[in-house]
Amino acid sequence: MELWFTEYQTKNLGLTARVKETLFMGKSEFQDIAVVDTYEFGRMLVLDGVLQTSIFDEYIYHEMIAHVPLGVHPNPQNVLVIGGGDGGSVREIVKHTAVQQVEMVEIDGLVVEVSKKYLPEISVALIQEHPKLQLKIGDGIGHMAGAANKYDVIIVDCSDPIGPGEGLFTPAFYQDVYKALRTDGLFVQQTESPFYHQPLLKRLRQDIATLFPITRTYLAQIPLYPSGTHCFTIGSKKYDPLTVDKSHVSQMETRYYNRDLQLSCFALPNFIQELFK
Amino acid sequence: MELWFTEYQTKNLGLTARVKETLFMGKSEFQDIAVVDTYEFGRMLVLDGVLQTSIFDEYIYHEMIAHVPLGVHPNPQNVLVIGGGDGGSVREIVKHTAVQQVEMVEIDGLVVEVSKKYLPEISVALIQEHPKLQLKIGDGIGHMAGAANKYDVIIVDCSDPIGPGEGLFTPAFYQDVYKALRTDGLFVQQTESPFYHQPLLKRLRQDIATLFPITRTYLAQIPLYPSGTHCFTIGSKKYDPLTVDKSHVSQMETRYYNRDLQLSCFALPNFIQELFK
Repeated sequence: MELWFTEYQTKNLGLTARVKETLFMGKSEFQDIAVVDTYEFGRMLVLDGVLQTSIFDEYIYHEMIAHVPLGVHPNPQNVLVIGGGDGGSVREIVKHTAVQQVEMVEIDGLVVEVSKKYLPEISVALIQEHPKLQLKIGDGIGHMAGAANKYDVIIVDCSDPIGPGEGLFTPAFYQDVYKALRTDGLFVQQTESPFYHQPLLKRLRQDIATLFPITRTYLAQIPLYPSGTHCFTIGSKKYDPLTVDKSHVSQMETRYYNRDLQLSCFALPNFIQELFK
Repeated sequence: MELWFTEYQTKNLGLTARVKETLFMGKSEFQDIAVVDTYEFGRMLVLDGVLQTSIFDEYIYHEMIAHVPLGVHPNPQNVLVIGGGDGGSVREIVKHTAVQQVEMVEIDGLVVEVSKKYLPEISVALIQEHPKLQLKIGDGIGHMAGAANKYDVIIVDCSDPIGPGEGLFTPAFYQDVYKALRTDGLFVQQTESPFYHQPLLKRLRQDIATLFPITRTYLAQIPLYPSGTHCFTIGSKKYDPLTVDKSHVSQMETRYYNRDLQLSCFALPNFIQELFK
């Protein structure tokens, strides 16, 4: 028997992957959680039927959501991650010598437990309880509302804007992010596919640009995600990602990210530039 | 009834798209040819079951295979296209004022006829018999073997290295390409996905680098193609794509390509750089 998992990325388009084995299926207070092992992507984390990450290409998402914003800030000592339950973002963030503390606030404790058990390559910093890490299971929105002038970089590593992640894509949340950042702070959020989620991306860009003097979107190539191209949007109070001196950017052990990409990932095709006009 | 077309991109992975209508199904001397209209990608050209191009994202492939190499050469007067039966590459090439003549050699006349009938947005330069264009239905390998010191830029716009395109991915063909180019000429070839076709890409890079002093690979984001990221490799006798002065690059009406991408598309993630070592 051949088993195939199909994710319908839009109503009329799907990615279908041949399954080796279902390793975990469960339900938390917030969502359905599954870990499925596939021939092409290896083990994949699936939340409410939506592909979140895979062993095959997880490094791209996690390196790019972490190293690009951290490369923009000259001295990112205090970092906050909202979401990021699989631990991949934290694994990358702690590579930066400037970083002294990473707080991570994940709403769903079962995502953390399942990731530690079935995706140890990704969750390694959670498993080892990395000394820079403070992990809190709780509501990211509430946490953000209670913080002021505290973080250099905030990384919103959330799932899609349906389900538990919904409140992380609102102007009210961005106001709390702004307040929680220091006067030269910046934040990044995953902002979906520039091909299939254009109305969402356009709205988020506008909402962020209403608050932050500098708003920039960058791209990464991630085969697992709809269209294979994913985008991230930065709101920054002071530092412009386009004027980073790449010779000052830290070099770390990475599989995707490098100093050239720190700048080139912000070069946008015309159709995306048009969207932002 | 819902009709879905699934392309198996690897043995264990597929892209599945909901079909509106099958517009054409036929068989030439060389291959099966189909045009299928889909909800997500619009009309798609399918050769031997493999997706070739779609109305939704064809501009990305055609702009990037044409404008990047033409942007590297300071005065590309004579251009040769091998393949490119849908006409999309020629549509882009003739936008360059420096270009005086484009020869196009396509092996399969039925691909040209079907594209003119069902994909007029793509094949417009073929339909209008553009004055710069000389179209020849015939074998690209034979044509190349008979040419010497003739072209400034050669664009190998071929299908996968199985079926009629197979002979276009060989050292013998690259030797003929080298001979057909002027002393400062360069060529480009589509070289598949850097995620799913790594052994092929590595071999082609090596074969091209054996002959040409400068070999460079660049990327474009194309949702229709396996992994969503496609790569192209340039072999150049004199001009290095990495040292192009982007202020000298022509500006044309484009939907994807622009001057920033002329350079940034050559910034490669570490895993691709590692592949080339």
